[in-house]
Amino acid sequence: MLTSTKQQIQHFLTKNEDKARLLVSCPDQPGIVSCISRFLYEHGANIVESNQYTTDHEEGTFFLRIVFASENMKEKEENLKINFHTIAEQFGMTWRMTFLHELKRTAIFVSKELHCLRELLYEWESGNLVTDIPLVISNHETARDIVESFGIPFYYIPANKDIRKEVEEKQLELLEEYDIDLIVLARYMQILTPNFVDRHPSKIINIHHSFLPAFIGANPHKRAYKRGVKLIGATSHYVTDDLDEGPIIEQDVIRVDHRNNVHDLKKKGRLIERSVLNRAVKWDIEDRVLVHKNKTIVL
Amino acid sequence: MLTSTKQQIQHFLTKNEDKARLLVSCPDQPGIVSCISRFLYEHGANIVESNQYTTDHEEGTFFLRIVFASENMKEKEENLKINFHTIAEQFGMTWRMTFLHELKRTAIFVSKELHCLRELLYEWESGNLVTDIPLVISNHETARDIVESFGIPFYYIPANKDIRKEVEEKQLELLEEYDIDLIVLARYMQILTPNFVDRHPSKIINIHHSFLPAFIGANPHKRAYKRGVKLIGATSHYVTDDLDEGPIIEQDVIRVDHRNNVHDLKKKGRLIERSVLNRAVKWDIEDRVLVHKNKTIVL
Amino acid sequence: MLTSTKQQIQHFLTKNEDKARLLVSCPDQPGIVSCISRFLYEHGANIVESNQYTTDHEEGTFFLRIVFASENMKEKEENLKINFHTIAEQFGMTWRMTFLHELKRTAIFVSKELHCLRELLYEWESGNLVTDIPLVISNHETARDIVESFGIPFYYIPANKDIRKEVEEKQLELLEEYDIDLIVLARYMQILTPNFVDRHPSKIINIHHSFLPAFIGANPHKRAYKRGVKLIGATSHYVTDDLDEGPIIEQDVIRVDHRNNVHDLKKKGRLIERSVLNRAVKWDIEDRVLVHKNKTIVL
Amino acid sequence: MLTSTKQQIQHFLTKNEDKARLLVSCPDQPGIVSCISRFLYEHGANIVESNQYTTDHEEGTFFLRIVFASENMKEKEENLKINFHTIAEQFGMTWRMTFLHELKRTAIFVSKELHCLRELLYEWESGNLVTDIPLVISNHETARDIVESFGIPFYYIPANKDIRKEVEEKQLELLEEYDIDLIVLARYMQILTPNFVDRHPSKIINIHHSFLPAFIGANPHKRAYKRGVKLIGATSHYVTDDLDEGPIIEQDVIRVDHRNNVHDLKKKGRLIERSVLNRAVKWDIEDRVLVHKNKTIVL
Repeated sequence: MLTSTKQQIQHFLTKNEDKARLLVSCPDQPGIVSCISRFLYEHGANIVESNQYTTDHEEGTFFLRIVFASENMKEKEENLKINFHTIAEQFGMTWRMTFLHELKRTAIFVSKELHCLRELLYEWESGNLVTDIPLVISNHETARDIVESFGIPFYYIPANKDIRKEVEEKQLELLEEYDIDLIVLARYMQILTPNFVDRHPSKIINIHHSFLPAFIGANPHKRAYKRGVKLIGATSHYVTDDLDEGPIIEQDVIRVDHRNNVHDLKKKGRLIERSVLNRAVKWDIEDRVLVHKNKTIVL
Repeated sequence: MLTSTKQQIQHFLTKNEDKARLLVSCPDQPGIVSCISRFLYEHGANIVESNQYTTDHEEGTFFLRIVFASENMKEKEENLKINFHTIAEQFGMTWRMTFLHELKRTAIFVSKELHCLRELLYEWESGNLVTDIPLVISNHETARDIVESFGIPFYYIPANKDIRKEVEEKQLELLEEYDIDLIVLARYMQILTPNFVDRHPSKIINIHHSFLPAFIGANPHKRAYKRGVKLIGATSHYVTDDLDEGPIIEQDVIRVDHRNNVHDLKKKGRLIERSVLNRAVKWDIEDRVLVHKNKTIVL
Repeated sequence: MLTSTKQQIQHFLTKNEDKARLLVSCPDQPGIVSCISRFLYEHGANIVESNQYTTDHEEGTFFLRIVFASENMKEKEENLKINFHTIAEQFGMTWRMTFLHELKRTAIFVSKELHCLRELLYEWESGNLVTDIPLVISNHETARDIVESFGIPFYYIPANKDIRKEVEEKQLELLEEYDIDLIVLARYMQILTPNFVDRHPSKIINIHHSFLPAFIGANPHKRAYKRGVKLIGATSHYVTDDLDEGPIIEQDVIRVDHRNNVHDLKKKGRLIERSVLNRAVKWDIEDRVLVHKNKTIVL
Repeated sequence: MLTSTKQQIQHFLTKNEDKARLLVSCPDQPGIVSCISRFLYEHGANIVESNQYTTDHEEGTFFLRIVFASENMKEKEENLKINFHTIAEQFGMTWRMTFLHELKRTAIFVSKELHCLRELLYEWESGNLVTDIPLVISNHETARDIVESFGIPFYYIPANKDIRKEVEEKQLELLEEYDIDLIVLARYMQILTPNFVDRHPSKIINIHHSFLPAFIGANPHKRAYKRGVKLIGATSHYVTDDLDEGPIIEQDVIRVDHRNNVHDLKKKGRLIERSVLNRAVKWDIEDRVLVHKNKTIVL
């Protein structure tokens, strides 16, 4: 890691070492917020920020994101987790509690196009993506120089559909060795097998170079050009077994016109691909994203 | 009121008659959320939506918006208000509790340019602005036909700076008579006196035809043209005694270019003036806006 | 037509009575611009505005839009048209020359949802759509009041798929009677037959309530909700025999989030449907749109 | 220059070596376009793209940008320039003719904040900014590593207001030595003297971190925070002797809200500063920008 990045991130960690985040989803019923807020109060924690949303169906689902602060958070961490377990059981909660003195560990996968990788590295170096990036994996050597210039180990694992199994075994080994929490496909042009995907539910973020569900699949810009659209898009989503069908985290579009050929669309598209992926990754790292019925709730 | 509007609004009221909103701001301290959520739980109310924000200063300020639901809300209304008073005292809260079976009452002031008035009436007629509009006041006759076509009483009160006092007396009388909660200046081109403004703190919403603080004051489009800006803006804010200096609720911009003369800027500007004002009014009616130190917190 | 609209449009006509527009497309070859500009110069006309674009393929296509001015344009009109014919022949041009002292004649078709109709009428009344609107045709009575309040004849022609032929015969008769140049489907929810469409090539503008080609066909908002998109769109296009497949004139999107249900998407969608359709119609009326290989060139 | 960048740019040069651009402004009068297009036709050149705009005042000014192509452009270059001189005299034109086989030479000035520099280098490396970047000048060492990693000479010239004259002398020497066409101030935090500015009319592009004319001068984000604006901006303009008052080339804004402190505004601001500056530089390099009465015409 570069010195300036280290400092930026260290500064964030120090400033936030007494903060934690709680993410909850469960069937709605009266008393949930009351119970959670009493729990935090009794553990000496103060709620800094809180967002709640309940689906408005007959059988509503409750979603909550709380940022809370407490002196000596590190010492309380174990206790908070154990004690919250009881509440979670009572309400049938899916939940996680993260402590801001710990960094998430993010692996980036990339192929030959580097614009998304660059943006992530730049935003990371600027202290905007508060995470560790312990490694980058690629099926090409293209990204080696830039990755290593950031002091990040670079793993070149050639890949094609015939050796998918062996390739993924090597990748899985590395992910385990580096204890990875989040995988970002920053224009990684290989399809992942169900085996790989199923091991990382809502843990793999992809960027697709179209406004999904328009131009699902290959060559979206070519098809967008042919259709004569006036805007092109980019979509960041969690990867599931259905190609380009996973829960959408973020999307954006950019204006194009009759003067733009396919090559121009690609170039313009890159401008939004990188910002859309960057926002999606940032929100995931900040524990803002909940997945429910193949959709995301971003709190 | 038109039949279709009546139906739309009636439909909303029926659907939401068991809902209420609580808006709170107070000095931050531990236990606020816990206390409020226990209060609601004990009154048999369920939290439907909740947003909280605390300023990150030494002496933080706490802001909360809660939407809650309960059977037989009408019967509980009085009780909820009285009992919440105790909590409010304890934490030094500024607060308000509104019940969705009651409509807010909005008065619109307008002069000769009708685009903002039209947008508000249209959005109201479509059921997007859930409020009563018991009257429109104008210093010109221009808007009479359109206002009356919506079944709304129209009051023509000629105005100029020499008769400001008499004019405002008439206006104040009408506002009282119609029991008005919110005043919207939809391009009303008269300056209000401190006397008028002070009686309606955070109750008067204005639309300014520039991206404040750029081009504060008169003729913003002329000056924007002269400066050669590439975007022009619109700003909706609560009116205070400092002209164009009140807390900003919403802003937006639209792209212009060298081909646009002052007349074109005016025409393009209208497109965002109407949408910006519409959003600001909608948020106020939905109790989303808190004012703190000449800024707004929109929850 | 309302008095104020009449005045606005009259003002435009008077100010521009000495202006005309020339729209040209043809196979590219050297000398086209030189020839056209010499032609205009020799006829005493001055070029006010000019945009040219040539596709960058082997066999390029040339597109041109010129606004030109001349004293006594009305007297020269006939001559200009006849003499330009020779140039057009020489270069194999598709072309049209329009004179700004003449208003185009636009018919609006609408069903029950009125937001697009309203926007068009409002923009027309404000002098932003410089056209005649001699009639509105609908398969419902819903729009009658608003249309007639603008002084425009309203024709109620009930329609369903079983009587499509008879319905279109009546419509075609009216279009001929009123000498219509442009047909705008402002949320007209009936499918037109090939017979109707083929008679009006690039003369019928539709608004589709999705970001085409996403959610082509029925119920786009329902499907957008189900897919969990973060933006919804609107697309205005010329109508061809392939449903929702005609040349796209304009598109735009608006942000939505997890809190929005299908009903909310519909309401938000209307905000962009009306502005997208309005821009498309405006550009057509201003002779800015050329159609080439199922795409539009907007100059 | 990096190999990949060299290739990208070489590819562009080869593809466009037979193209040139003509930029013209002059008092409007009949026959200009006719004369220019005949001139090009007679020199065997074909017009690829053309945009013209005339101000609609009594004494209009005519602006034109033409891209034209011809076989053996290099051989014709001298001739075209000499012969066009006569036309230019006749119409009192300000003009320039650039040939796409020649690269413009751009110098970048930077201080400690690197986001704009990075964006320019990245876009340059990706082949989107078709220019030479023969040197970067800075009053800090911060950017050395990144600049040199792109194979670009880096000049560290410490600066402060007391030694402004000596500093600028060194800078001017370098600019002359490297034969620089365009100077980009990519967040260079030193004020330039009139002497320096006057030598480079419409040749120095700056990025200001606000939506000018709002928050002109120092600390715009701090003041934007204090005013409670809902959007913050960035403005790219040519540098003149009046600080932040030069002709605006491009502007953009990004949404902020009550949760964002000054530090957040700075971080969000960087996202648009870099894209706004990038677009402005790109348009200048592509000869799209004309300056007229302290405004820009972007064709």
